[in-house]
Amino acid sequence: MNEMRNADLTLQFRIPHSAFRIPDAWRPPVTQTVDLLAIAAHRDDLRAAEAERAAAVLGVALRLNAGLPDAHLQNDEPSRARLVELIRATHPRVVILPFPVGRHPDHRIASELGRDACYLAGLAKYGAAGAPHRPFKVLYALAYREDPVKPSFVVDISETFETKLEAIRCYASQFDGARAAGEIFPTGQDLYELIRVQSAHYGSLIRKAYGEPFFCNETLEVQDVLQLGVQSL
Amino acid sequence: MNEMRNADLTLQFRIPHSAFRIPDAWRPPVTQTVDLLAIAAHRDDLRAAEAERAAAVLGVALRLNAGLPDAHLQNDEPSRARLVELIRATHPRVVILPFPVGRHPDHRIASELGRDACYLAGLAKYGAAGAPHRPFKVLYALAYREDPVKPSFVVDISETFETKLEAIRCYASQFDGARAAGEIFPTGQDLYELIRVQSAHYGSLIRKAYGEPFFCNETLEVQDVLQLGVQSL
Amino acid sequence: MNEMRNADLTLQFRIPHSAFRIPDAWRPPVTQTVDLLAIAAHRDDLRAAEAERAAAVLGVALRLNAGLPDAHLQNDEPSRARLVELIRATHPRVVILPFPVGRHPDHRIASELGRDACYLAGLAKYGAAGAPHRPFKVLYALAYREDPVKPSFVVDISETFETKLEAIRCYASQFDGARAAGEIFPTGQDLYELIRVQSAHYGSLIRKAYGEPFFCNETLEVQDVLQLGVQSL
Amino acid sequence: MNEMRNADLTLQFRIPHSAFRIPDAWRPPVTQTVDLLAIAAHRDDLRAAEAERAAAVLGVALRLNAGLPDAHLQNDEPSRARLVELIRATHPRVVILPFPVGRHPDHRIASELGRDACYLAGLAKYGAAGAPHRPFKVLYALAYREDPVKPSFVVDISETFETKLEAIRCYASQFDGARAAGEIFPTGQDLYELIRVQSAHYGSLIRKAYGEPFFCNETLEVQDVLQLGVQSL
Amino acid sequence: MNEMRNADLTLQFRIPHSAFRIPDAWRPPVTQTVDLLAIAAHRDDLRAAEAERAAAVLGVALRLNAGLPDAHLQNDEPSRARLVELIRATHPRVVILPFPVGRHPDHRIASELGRDACYLAGLAKYGAAGAPHRPFKVLYALAYREDPVKPSFVVDISETFETKLEAIRCYASQFDGARAAGEIFPTGQDLYELIRVQSAHYGSLIRKAYGEPFFCNETLEVQDVLQLGVQSL
Amino acid sequence: MNEMRNADLTLQFRIPHSAFRIPDAWRPPVTQTVDLLAIAAHRDDLRAAEAERAAAVLGVALRLNAGLPDAHLQNDEPSRARLVELIRATHPRVVILPFPVGRHPDHRIASELGRDACYLAGLAKYGAAGAPHRPFKVLYALAYREDPVKPSFVVDISETFETKLEAIRCYASQFDGARAAGEIFPTGQDLYELIRVQSAHYGSLIRKAYGEPFFCNETLEVQDVLQLGVQSL
Repeated sequence: MNEMRNADLTLQFRIPHSAFRIPDAWRPPVTQTVDLLAIAAHRDDLRAAEAERAAAVLGVALRLNAGLPDAHLQNDEPSRARLVELIRATHPRVVILPFPVGRHPDHRIASELGRDACYLAGLAKYGAAGAPHRPFKVLYALAYREDPVKPSFVVDISETFETKLEAIRCYASQFDGARAAGEIFPTGQDLYELIRVQSAHYGSLIRKAYGEPFFCNETLEVQDVLQLGVQSL
Repeated sequence: MNEMRNADLTLQFRIPHSAFRIPDAWRPPVTQTVDLLAIAAHRDDLRAAEAERAAAVLGVALRLNAGLPDAHLQNDEPSRARLVELIRATHPRVVILPFPVGRHPDHRIASELGRDACYLAGLAKYGAAGAPHRPFKVLYALAYREDPVKPSFVVDISETFETKLEAIRCYASQFDGARAAGEIFPTGQDLYELIRVQSAHYGSLIRKAYGEPFFCNETLEVQDVLQLGVQSL
Repeated sequence: MNEMRNADLTLQFRIPHSAFRIPDAWRPPVTQTVDLLAIAAHRDDLRAAEAERAAAVLGVALRLNAGLPDAHLQNDEPSRARLVELIRATHPRVVILPFPVGRHPDHRIASELGRDACYLAGLAKYGAAGAPHRPFKVLYALAYREDPVKPSFVVDISETFETKLEAIRCYASQFDGARAAGEIFPTGQDLYELIRVQSAHYGSLIRKAYGEPFFCNETLEVQDVLQLGVQSL
Repeated sequence: MNEMRNADLTLQFRIPHSAFRIPDAWRPPVTQTVDLLAIAAHRDDLRAAEAERAAAVLGVALRLNAGLPDAHLQNDEPSRARLVELIRATHPRVVILPFPVGRHPDHRIASELGRDACYLAGLAKYGAAGAPHRPFKVLYALAYREDPVKPSFVVDISETFETKLEAIRCYASQFDGARAAGEIFPTGQDLYELIRVQSAHYGSLIRKAYGEPFFCNETLEVQDVLQLGVQSL
Repeated sequence: MNEMRNADLTLQFRIPHSAFRIPDAWRPPVTQTVDLLAIAAHRDDLRAAEAERAAAVLGVALRLNAGLPDAHLQNDEPSRARLVELIRATHPRVVILPFPVGRHPDHRIASELGRDACYLAGLAKYGAAGAPHRPFKVLYALAYREDPVKPSFVVDISETFETKLEAIRCYASQFDGARAAGEIFPTGQDLYELIRVQSAHYGSLIRKAYGEPFFCNETLEVQDVLQLGVQSL
Repeated sequence: MNEMRNADLTLQFRIPHSAFRIPDAWRPPVTQTVDLLAIAAHRDDLRAAEAERAAAVLGVALRLNAGLPDAHLQNDEPSRARLVELIRATHPRVVILPFPVGRHPDHRIASELGRDACYLAGLAKYGAAGAPHRPFKVLYALAYREDPVKPSFVVDISETFETKLEAIRCYASQFDGARAAGEIFPTGQDLYELIRVQSAHYGSLIRKAYGEPFFCNETLEVQDVLQLGVQSL
C-alpha cells in the first residue's frame, strides 16, 4: 500500500496467488495511530528478517502480527476481539482487506473477519480493549484475483511499481521453498512476471502503465465530472 | 448539469419519466466551445419562451437544437453527421447522454446516436464539417430511471437542488398538458415530489441530502484512497 | 410487518441502518401459532418499556426474545436449535429475515441462522423440542439496505406508513443515545427522513406513495397476467 | 396465451426454437378491443388453413397480420406506425412480446419494435391512425429461449398444456418442411418433446407440472405476502 | 458420476431436492487412489444395504463415509482435517462438490468445507495425516438446483441416464419415508419425473437428450474451436 | 485466427483498440470453402500491399472484402444480403465476430450484422445468391476489449503469439498515421506492449503464457471432466 501514499501500519503484497503479512509477535498496546491499515492473511513460515527488509524497502511505519493461526483462521469471538483491539489501537481511516473470494480459505475468512471487526470496533459496548473507533472506509484488494472481476476503481502505481516488486523479491527464498513444494505456484507460472502482467493489465484499464485494483461495496462519490480521468473512447 | 459546475452548452433536466431539451432552431456554425455537453431527447411541443426562462435559471451558456424529429429519431447517417458537426463545433471535454434503457424509444436512440457521434467526431476522415475532436469522457445520466441500477458514481447536488427544481418548474404548463393527456405521468405520481424523492435516494447513497447518479463504461481512477468520501459502515 | 396484514408474532422495524427486535426474555413454550414470523437481529440495550409501546402501536400479537448474545451472534448448533424450537412452537407460514448483506455482522449471521433453522425445523429427526414444521415461505427484508438492490417484489405500505414511523419513534431515546455515540448513524443523516425517502423510493417502483421491498430466492408465480399491477410505460 | 385466461386477439406459440403468428392479411380497422395482445414474429410460409385450425383449438378471438416482411423485419418508421395503429385499434391492457435475445433476427427486431410501438401509441401527437392508447403492461415471453434466464415470474399452465401442444400440432406439416430443410430444428431434437421438457422445467420452478415463463422490466407488486405461492424450502 | 466415465471412489446422486452419499463407516487408511472424488452431504438414515445395491448398479469402486454429523455439519478444524486426510489418501485429480447455494444447510457447508480441504490438503505444513496432494480440478454439481443458474458446462449423459435413475431407485424406501414425513419433497412433485425433466432440460442446452450441469470458478480452456460442440443457431 | 489451427479464409487481428480486415475488392463467386471465417470491421485506408504481407505471415488462405462502407456501416437489407452470400459461398463451420460492445460503432454493427447473416444464410427462402448454409458455431472475439469481461473460454496461443505480433507489425505505417491523428490510440499507450499485456493476462487465466479470449452465448459441452485443463487451486 505504500505505493499509494502513506501506508503507515503494515503492508500487503498483492500477488496473483496469495497474500502475505509479516509475522512479528503481537505487541499491544500500540501507541501509534495510522491513516491506512492493511489486514492480510499471512504464512507463518516467513522469516522475520526478510519481512523487516521488505518493510524497509516500502517505508512501512509499523508492522503487527495479530497472532492468529495460519491455515486455521476462524471468524470466531476471540479472533474478532483481537482485531477490534488492533483497530481501536491504531485508529485507521482506511482499512484494506483481501477480496472474500480466493484460493486459500484464509483469504475468505480474513476478509470477513476484518470486515466484522471494523464494524464492531465502533460499538461502545463491545467488550474489547480500547476506545470505540470505526474506520471511515473499507476497501477490498483485488490484485491477487486470477479471474476478471470489474474493480470499483484502480489506483495508478506506475511510479512505485518497481519498489513494490523489489519488496516482493525480499521474500525470494520463501517463494522458492513454497514453489518447490508445489504449494504457492503449482501452475508453474513465474511469480514476478505474473505480477507485472496483472499490474499492467489493471493499469491499462485507466490508461496507465501499472495499476492496483480495488473493490468497495458503497457507491463512489465524484465531486467534479470535469476532473474525471480515463478517456472513454 | 449546471448544478455540478459549468454546463456551458445546454441542459438536461433529469426527471423520473423523461428528459427534455430546449427546441431552438439549429444554428451552425457555433463559435463557442464548452466544457460539458449534455445531449438529450426532447419534446418538440415545448415552448421557446419557457425554455429560455429555464436556461436563465440554470445559467446555461448556450442552447442548441439538432433539428432531429421528435418521436421519429433514428440512428442513421444524417443524424450522426449532424451530431458530429455539433460536437466538433463545441469541442466538449465531457458529454452526458441518456442511459440507453428507458421508457421512450428516443432515449435509447439518442443514447446510442450520441455515443456513436462522439467516436466518429474524432475520425479525421469522417465526412462532416469541422475539425476532428473526440470528447475525453462520455457519461450516462441515470436519474430518469425508475428501477434501481447501481450508478458508477453519484455527484452531490445538495446545494443546487432547489435551483434544479425551479428550472423544471418553468415547464409547468407543458407538464400539465402532457399530464392531462396521460402521456408523461400516466401513473398519477406527482412530478416534483418524485424528483425530490429520487434525488434524495441517490443522495443517501453518498450520505448527502441530494445526489445525481451517473453511469460510465470505463473503469474509474482514484488518485488517493485516503481522500475517498462516503463512509463504508 | 403489521402494515402488510397480520404480523402476529413479532416486529421488525426496517430502517436504513439497522434492524431491531424487542428484547424480552425467552419464554417457551409458546402456545400461540402465527401466520408471519419476523426474525431480526436486535440490540440488547433497548428498554422493554419502549418496545412494549412500539408493539402496541403496531398491534403485534406476540414478541419473543431468542436470548442470543447481541454483537456475539454465531450460526452454531445451540443457536440453530433454539430458533428451531421457536419456529416449531409458533408454526409460521411466512418467515421474514434480514437480507444477508448489511453493515452489522449480526445481520449476515441472523439471516443465515434463520434460513438454516427454517429448513432444519422441518426435519423429523432434528433433535430439538417441538413437532416438525417447515415454513412455507422465506422472505428477506431489503429496506435497511443503503445501496440499490433490485427487489423481487415491493408491498404497498402507503396506508400504514405513518403508523410504522410512529412505532419507530417509540425508540427515540435509544436512537439518540446510539447516535450520540456515533454507532448507528455516524453519517449524520436524519433517521426519520431517511426512512421516509427510502420508503418513497421503493414505493415509486410500484407507482405508490410508500413501499416495502423484499427479496426471495425462488421464482415468483403469477396467476393472472391481466391482474398484474405497476404500469410498464 | 389462451391457456392463461382470455387471449382475445391473437396467439403466440412459445416453443424452444421459434415463435409464430398466423399470417392473415392485414384488415384494419379493427372494431374489437381485447385484454391481451401477443405480438410475434412469424414465418410467411405458414398456411392460413392450419393457422385457422390452431386458433380454433385455442379459442383465440381475433387474429391479425401486420403485413411486415418476414426475415426482412426492420424497426423503422412505417413498421412502428403500423403497429401503433394496431395497438390503438385493439386497445389491449397487456402486450406480450418476444424476449429480445433469440436465434432469429426477427425476434430481436419484433421485440424492440413492439416495445417502441406500445410507448408511441400513447402519444397524442404521434402521427398514426387511432385514438392514443398506451398498454398498461408489457411482458416478454421467455419460453422459446434455449439458455437459462431467470424469469420475473412463471404462470401455471398445467391444465391447458395439452391444448397448447394440440394447437402446435396443427402446424405439423410446416414444421416437417422446415425441419427437412434444416432451418428450424437443425439440431435434430424433437420439437414436441422439447416443448414438454421446457414447460415442465419452468413448471418445476413454481412446483407445478407445466409453467410459462415471462420477463418484465419493472418491479413486481405483491399485495399480501401470506398469499404468495411456491414453497421456499 | 459413473455416467461420465470412471467415478472410482464414491457417488453423488444429483436430484432436484437433495444429495446423498452412502453412509458406510469411516475406514482409513485407504490404499486405493482415484481419478474422481465426489463429496456430498448425506442423510444418516439411509440403509447400508441399499447403498451397496446402488453402488453396484453404478460400478462405483470405493465408498467412504467421513463420519461427520448429518444436519449438524460444521466447517471447523476437525472436519477439515478429516477431509484433508481423505483427499490425501485417495489422491484424486478431480473433486466434485455440491453447489454452495441450496435448500439444506449441509449443502452450503459441505461445499465450503470440501473446497477448503482441497486447498489445505496441498499444504505441506498442514497438520493432518498423509502426503500433501492438491486436486487439479474442483467442480460444483448444479443438478439439484431448482432455480436456473447458467452452468459453466454440461456433460452429455444420454447413454447412462437410465442407469443413473436405476441407482436412485435403489433408495426408494428411504425416499418414500422422507416423502411421507414431508421432509424431502414437501412440494408433492414426483422425484423420478423431476430428475428426468431437469436432466432433459440441461441436455437441451447442449442439444442432447440428457445432460449433467457443472459450475467451475476458473476460466475454461478450449484447444480447438473447430472441435466445439453445441450448434449456436 | 491462424494461430489456432487453420483459419482458411481471412484474418482478424485482435488488438486492444480496433479490429481490421484486409480491404480487397469483393470477388464473388468464391469457389473455396473454409473451416473458419472471421468477420471484422475494417478501416478502408489500409493499403493492400501491407495486408497481403500480413496475410502471408499468418498463412491465411483467402481474404475477401465485403465492400461495405467504413464508419458508415448499417445493419440493413443490402448489407445482410451481401454477408449471406459470402457465408453461403465459403460454407464455414465456425464464424468469429467482434464482441458487440466496443469503442467504434462499426464493432457493434458488424457484430449484429454478422450474427443476423449467419442465421439468415440458413433460410432456404432468404433471397440471396447461394445454397442455404448455417454456420455451426458463432463466437465473439473479446481481445480488443479494454475492460474486463469474463470470457466463455480462452485458447492457448503461446506458440503462435510472436507470429501474431509480426503480422500486426506489417500495418505499422497505418498505425503510425492513425496514431499521429489521435484516432486509434489517443490514450498514448503503446500498441504492441498493450497487445502483449492483454494476451498475457488472458493467458494467465488458463495458466499459459498467452491466450486469446472468446465469448459464446450457448452452453459449453465438455466430454470428459478428467481431461479439463486449468488448475483450480
